[in-house]
Amino acid sequence: MEIYKITPRGLENCRFDDMSREKGNRYWLLLTPEEMVNANGFFNFNSRTIDECLSNNQVPRLEVYESFSFGVINIINKEKDFILASELNFYLTSNYLIFVTKDSSSDMIKAVKDEIDGNSIDLERILYIFLDRLTASDNEILKDIEEDISDIEELVIKGENRDYIMDIVSLRKQLLFLKRYYEPLLDIAEGLEENENGLINEKSVRYFTILKDRIERLNRNVLNLRDYITQVREAYQAQVDINLNKIMKLFTVITAIFLPLSLIAGWYGMNFKYMPELSWVMGYPFAFLLSGIVIAICLIYFKKHDFI
Amino acid sequence: MEIYKITPRGLENCRFDDMSREKGNRYWLLLTPEEMVNANGFFNFNSRTIDECLSNNQVPRLEVYESFSFGVINIINKEKDFILASELNFYLTSNYLIFVTKDSSSDMIKAVKDEIDGNSIDLERILYIFLDRLTASDNEILKDIEEDISDIEELVIKGENRDYIMDIVSLRKQLLFLKRYYEPLLDIAEGLEENENGLINEKSVRYFTILKDRIERLNRNVLNLRDYITQVREAYQAQVDINLNKIMKLFTVITAIFLPLSLIAGWYGMNFKYMPELSWVMGYPFAFLLSGIVIAICLIYFKKHDFI
Amino acid sequence: MEIYKITPRGLENCRFDDMSREKGNRYWLLLTPEEMVNANGFFNFNSRTIDECLSNNQVPRLEVYESFSFGVINIINKEKDFILASELNFYLTSNYLIFVTKDSSSDMIKAVKDEIDGNSIDLERILYIFLDRLTASDNEILKDIEEDISDIEELVIKGENRDYIMDIVSLRKQLLFLKRYYEPLLDIAEGLEENENGLINEKSVRYFTILKDRIERLNRNVLNLRDYITQVREAYQAQVDINLNKIMKLFTVITAIFLPLSLIAGWYGMNFKYMPELSWVMGYPFAFLLSGIVIAICLIYFKKHDFI
Amino acid sequence: MEIYKITPRGLENCRFDDMSREKGNRYWLLLTPEEMVNANGFFNFNSRTIDECLSNNQVPRLEVYESFSFGVINIINKEKDFILASELNFYLTSNYLIFVTKDSSSDMIKAVKDEIDGNSIDLERILYIFLDRLTASDNEILKDIEEDISDIEELVIKGENRDYIMDIVSLRKQLLFLKRYYEPLLDIAEGLEENENGLINEKSVRYFTILKDRIERLNRNVLNLRDYITQVREAYQAQVDINLNKIMKLFTVITAIFLPLSLIAGWYGMNFKYMPELSWVMGYPFAFLLSGIVIAICLIYFKKHDFI
Amino acid sequence: MEIYKITPRGLENCRFDDMSREKGNRYWLLLTPEEMVNANGFFNFNSRTIDECLSNNQVPRLEVYESFSFGVINIINKEKDFILASELNFYLTSNYLIFVTKDSSSDMIKAVKDEIDGNSIDLERILYIFLDRLTASDNEILKDIEEDISDIEELVIKGENRDYIMDIVSLRKQLLFLKRYYEPLLDIAEGLEENENGLINEKSVRYFTILKDRIERLNRNVLNLRDYITQVREAYQAQVDINLNKIMKLFTVITAIFLPLSLIAGWYGMNFKYMPELSWVMGYPFAFLLSGIVIAICLIYFKKHDFI
Ligand SMILES: [Mg+2]
Ligand SMILES: [Mg+2]
Ligand SMILES: [Mg+2]
Ligand SMILES: [Mg+2]
Ligand SMILES: [Mg+2]
Ligand SMILES: [Mg+2]
Ligand SMILES: [Mg+2]
Ligand SMILES: [Mg+2]
Ligand SMILES: [Mg+2]
Ligand SMILES: [Mg+2]
Ligand SMILES: [Mg+2]
Ligand SMILES: [Mg+2]
Ligand SMILES: [Mg+2]
Ligand SMILES: [Mg+2]
Ligand SMILES: [Mg+2]
Ligand SMILES: [Mg+2]
Ligand SMILES: [Mg+2]
Ligand SMILES: [Mg+2]
Ligand SMILES: [Mg+2]
Ligand SMILES: [Mg+2]
Ligand SMILES: [Mg+2]
Ligand SMILES: [Mg+2]
Ligand SMILES: [Mg+2]
Ligand SMILES: [Mg+2]
Ligand SMILES: [Mg+2]
Ligand SMILES: [Mg+2]
Ligand SMILES: [Mg+2]
Ligand SMILES: [Mg+2]
Ligand SMILES: [Mg+2]
Ligand SMILES: [Mg+2]
Ligand SMILES: [Mg+2]
Repeated sequence: MEIYKITPRGLENCRFDDMSREKGNRYWLLLTPEEMVNANGFFNFNSRTIDECLSNNQVPRLEVYESFSFGVINIINKEKDFILASELNFYLTSNYLIFVTKDSSSDMIKAVKDEIDGNSIDLERILYIFLDRLTASDNEILKDIEEDISDIEELVIKGENRDYIMDIVSLRKQLLFLKRYYEPLLDIAEGLEENENGLINEKSVRYFTILKDRIERLNRNVLNLRDYITQVREAYQAQVDINLNKIMKLFTVITAIFLPLSLIAGWYGMNFKYMPELSWVMGYPFAFLLSGIVIAICLIYFKKHDFI
Repeated sequence: MEIYKITPRGLENCRFDDMSREKGNRYWLLLTPEEMVNANGFFNFNSRTIDECLSNNQVPRLEVYESFSFGVINIINKEKDFILASELNFYLTSNYLIFVTKDSSSDMIKAVKDEIDGNSIDLERILYIFLDRLTASDNEILKDIEEDISDIEELVIKGENRDYIMDIVSLRKQLLFLKRYYEPLLDIAEGLEENENGLINEKSVRYFTILKDRIERLNRNVLNLRDYITQVREAYQAQVDINLNKIMKLFTVITAIFLPLSLIAGWYGMNFKYMPELSWVMGYPFAFLLSGIVIAICLIYFKKHDFI
Repeated sequence: MEIYKITPRGLENCRFDDMSREKGNRYWLLLTPEEMVNANGFFNFNSRTIDECLSNNQVPRLEVYESFSFGVINIINKEKDFILASELNFYLTSNYLIFVTKDSSSDMIKAVKDEIDGNSIDLERILYIFLDRLTASDNEILKDIEEDISDIEELVIKGENRDYIMDIVSLRKQLLFLKRYYEPLLDIAEGLEENENGLINEKSVRYFTILKDRIERLNRNVLNLRDYITQVREAYQAQVDINLNKIMKLFTVITAIFLPLSLIAGWYGMNFKYMPELSWVMGYPFAFLLSGIVIAICLIYFKKHDFI
Repeated sequence: MEIYKITPRGLENCRFDDMSREKGNRYWLLLTPEEMVNANGFFNFNSRTIDECLSNNQVPRLEVYESFSFGVINIINKEKDFILASELNFYLTSNYLIFVTKDSSSDMIKAVKDEIDGNSIDLERILYIFLDRLTASDNEILKDIEEDISDIEELVIKGENRDYIMDIVSLRKQLLFLKRYYEPLLDIAEGLEENENGLINEKSVRYFTILKDRIERLNRNVLNLRDYITQVREAYQAQVDINLNKIMKLFTVITAIFLPLSLIAGWYGMNFKYMPELSWVMGYPFAFLLSGIVIAICLIYFKKHDFI
Repeated sequence: MEIYKITPRGLENCRFDDMSREKGNRYWLLLTPEEMVNANGFFNFNSRTIDECLSNNQVPRLEVYESFSFGVINIINKEKDFILASELNFYLTSNYLIFVTKDSSSDMIKAVKDEIDGNSIDLERILYIFLDRLTASDNEILKDIEEDISDIEELVIKGENRDYIMDIVSLRKQLLFLKRYYEPLLDIAEGLEENENGLINEKSVRYFTILKDRIERLNRNVLNLRDYITQVREAYQAQVDINLNKIMKLFTVITAIFLPLSLIAGWYGMNFKYMPELSWVMGYPFAFLLSGIVIAICLIYFKKHDFI
């Protein structure tokens, strides 16, 4: 349990008892789910949201009640295959901003404290800084994905004969993951911007507008990258189809040359008593000639029809 | 027929006659369609909605009339292949909330009663609790579907050579079913949130907003899972195409090796009187050599062109 | 020409002359296009809409003028392949509702009269009843289409080897037809709900809202059925692709077994003087053995690679 | 240069000098781009729009300035493959409607004059009549396209073995052309309906609403026809795939019958000294029998597996 | 560092010190990022935007603060494969328009100065002229792309047997690039049109509306060209599929003719002692006749089934 009183000189450590006595000041609290349950005797939030603080795997969202807003946020480890790092719930009232999380000493929280430093700050600005940090490095992640797609595209165009499906599937999955990550974040930013219960002051709303616009840009970027990888996938699949045609053309040429030759050979392998060609002196050269003619006709025909 | 009077201490059993005498109180009624027909002498709803209470297979929706709202809701058994469990119609007026259903002792209704318990509660809150229960466990259902898709995806990527179309078709059908289930529910939640006939008090509207947001999140999740399964389907189909190419390459290699060899064999099976090779001492080894050269050329060519 | 005066006891037959003399009453008129032309000396609608009453094949729509609304509606025979049954134009002014149609004794009109019976009724309610009848049985039609799609899906999944394209094409065409039928109807219902020239009284607007919602649900259902049939089509096409692979695998197995065997046979059919195998006592059994080995290798290889 | 004064008796020819002296009247002007440049000394429009009057190939649009609206419209020859017939720019101010075009004697302009005839008319009504004429016959054009698509569909379903890609490509291109033609027209109609600079009187706005609705219906029709042709294309492509399967089945049957027969023939063509079958009296009939068994097995197998 | 004072006679050069003393005038500043850092002692913008001026590779956007607007714009070299030419940041306050860029002597800036020339001008008009220049020649670029697509389409329809995938991929990539370029520009123009901090006067807002409409038209054009190239790609892929069918038909015909002939030849190459045909005088002509019949049957069959 960490409690910070908001003072003109920045954050100031404070005990729960002091906080509960002094009315009128504003506080930022970092609680574990269990501490939240205990503290609720003082705050009196509805039991439903308290239950969600205790459970995991909740869907990220913002619920705007008359006197407070309640939020669920998933923190993602974007380096390690986008696995869920931790979940954070928050309450925002007119005087308290409560973060309910199991690891209050995470990098995210530390970075927020660093940015506040010794400045006087609104409660909603702390929330803004935290939400802003969540997507701070996402432009780089999207740029990495774009380069990966671009690499595959180049190989596909060059006709490098490899199986790209696995790479494409993996990139598409990452993009879908990000889309599903941004959509609820966008809802949360919009909900804070709309400010239906009036907890955020007019001036700060502007910051949530900028936050919302940024997440929208990120999401739009994801959608455009999906378009991009769709193009690459379709180009690859077209190459596969074109390759099949090339294979079948090669195959047809081979067959069309050897079947007639084999027929000639088989023909003069027949055992009829009365086959005049067999006893001709020029019979064997005649078979050669016949074979040559067949080959020539095939080559001319297939050349003309672009098979070879 | 069950009639509950709303009191500061929770629900209180009550008879129809008492209810029709005392004006000013609020009541929750659980009626069968037939009881609704009889009770309409007292309530005077339009005959069209009464007809719908009697018939089954109505489309879920909300109709907002001047002095009351009428709703149709389908209750789905999500464990058993999403079959229709039962239909419920409701009327909401300023003093009455009427549920018209054939099994008023269903799990859903019991759960609503449990949640109300001994609390004082608004009529619209009862309706909210009921609607909220309808989708209470849907996040788990969607998570199950997501895992199923993910399993198929893994097998497809590993190149496991099975027919996944049946599984994909079945999952897509489930998602389409859910989409078609959420769309009218969303309309109903929106209609209650809009509150055009003013039957719901300002404070309670907030609950229907939260309900609507939740159904929207569920529906969005369904759409994203559709995207996901589309990706898997396309990856699978790409694998099928790539496999065809592989089969045809193998086939071409087999043919390209054996047709020339067969030609050689056939050629020296010809019965011409004057075929010098036949009487050479090294004729047979020469045929072997020729065959070896053909095989070598084929192998080099196909190796170079990535066929083998 | 049929003219009905709206009275507190329902519709009352009336002659044109009486109507033109008594001001202040409200009338429902059923006119043929030619009668409309004559009657326009009294009504004075713009010539453009009158022209449209005379011509056929107009696009369904609503045009909202300052003192009247003009509508074009196509009546479709949904049993007989969705052919156009008849066209109806209507004028709505503050005192007159005019239906211009060639067969004023159609089932639709009769049904409207039946529903009015002896009740007092607004002019706009007559229009509402008529429009409502237009899509009254469409839920059944859509349910039929859904069952047809479901039947095809089952057969596709079972792998029944038939050509479903014709059925799929026909169902898709029906759905597109319905989409194109609902879109203008939706515009008409919306136009009446918006009520820009104020001809419809506040209370009746609610009915057009319910009508619009219903058409929207029908159209949404059509879109979802399109999704459904798209899924079936894609599943079918995937089956076609998978079948091709199976055919080619079978084909490859056949070829891979018989080509080497044929080579062996051809090889020992060569006529070289000096071929030691030919004179071996065990030559022929040796050929049998060789063939058996080839078959065994092929079967093992193809078994391992899932060809058989 | 043609200048028409709007009088209660219709249009009245007038000279530029007279117009520039008499204030308070309203005029419709038909100018060439060069005449517009000269006349701008009087009108004083911004140089940018004047430049556009002089140049060709401008994008159709409406620009709404404080005291005037400026529009660019492309007139299309829909009979001759949709080539650009001519460009028209217009200025609308409170007293002047100026059409800047190279051929002021075109059919379009004549038709507008005919419709005005001797009637008193607003300036914006002249503009409306002109814009209305632009798409007057488009329903017929779309009906023609629909019939073309329907013809192709019927042939595809019948399985007529022709190459429809060229026809489909051409129809899709026409529809894309129309979509690109309607989109800016829709913007122009919407801009005039919004009437942000108030140049159009309240009553006339209604006409631009009807115009906008009509263009929207046309565009929606185009989108639906695109859906239709997409369905036909997909059906055709499915037929191509199904045909390939049929070809390959036929091919497999041929191969599966003849390869074993050829093996039998080749087998008894071997030259081993010790091949007992060769000297059997029933050897040759035995080969016949063997061949017959092979054929029978193949036919039964392929019949069972739906190949023939 | 260039500073221009806005005077009734156009721009007037000015020093930083003079500017910082005289209040009430309006100025246009061209600063390098480093100069901006220094000058911020005077302007006092928030450190976050100053940081972005220093860094590159920022996402284009507009941020609207209470007393100023901050923008990031990418300038693209559209001749050279759309590479990033330079980045420009701008601040707009009520009295200052600051362009922060490394090359203030670029063509773009010069063109802006030329257009201003000696005219009195608003600060926001300078910004408008600059933004307007950004897309000034884009209609030509899009026309070029359209012609490229049209060329490929013609070749595809003619059946020219080339690999168009590379060209199609490249054009699609260009269009996606342009879409991603226009989307943030559109946001910027919309943000300036919305004018939430009131820095732009009512009259000038109209110019940003026209700008926004123009970018929207460009983006819509891009989307339509994407539709166009999708059509061409699908037509090409259909051709590839149709070609495969043709190849396989040719292949089937070849096989179906030669396999039976080879069987006949092989059959009479058998070495049975008792084969009556071999000793017939007409044996060899009989084989010829048999072969002729096989060929005739094949040709008739394949002609009938449209294979040849
Ligand atoms: Mg969404
Ligand atoms: Mg976007
Ligand atoms: Mg996008
Ligand atoms: Mg995509
Ligand atoms: Mg795309
Ligand atoms: Mg594809
Ligand atoms: Mg979504
Ligand atoms: Mg989604
Ligand atoms: Mg999908
Ligand atoms: Mg996708
Ligand atoms: Mg919907
Ligand atoms: Mg829908
Ligand atoms: Mg739908
Ligand atoms: Mg579809
Ligand atoms: Mg869909
Ligand atoms: Mg789908
Ligand atoms: Mg597909
Ligand atoms: Mg539509
Ligand atoms: Mg549409
Ligand atoms: Mg459509
Ligand atoms: Mg389409
Ligand atoms: Mg479609
Ligand atoms: Mg397709
Ligand atoms: Mg974008
Ligand atoms: Mg467009
Ligand atoms: Mg568009
Ligand atoms: Mg558009
Ligand atoms: Mg598009
Ligand atoms: Mg298309
Ligand atoms: Mg595309
Ligand atoms: Mg496609």
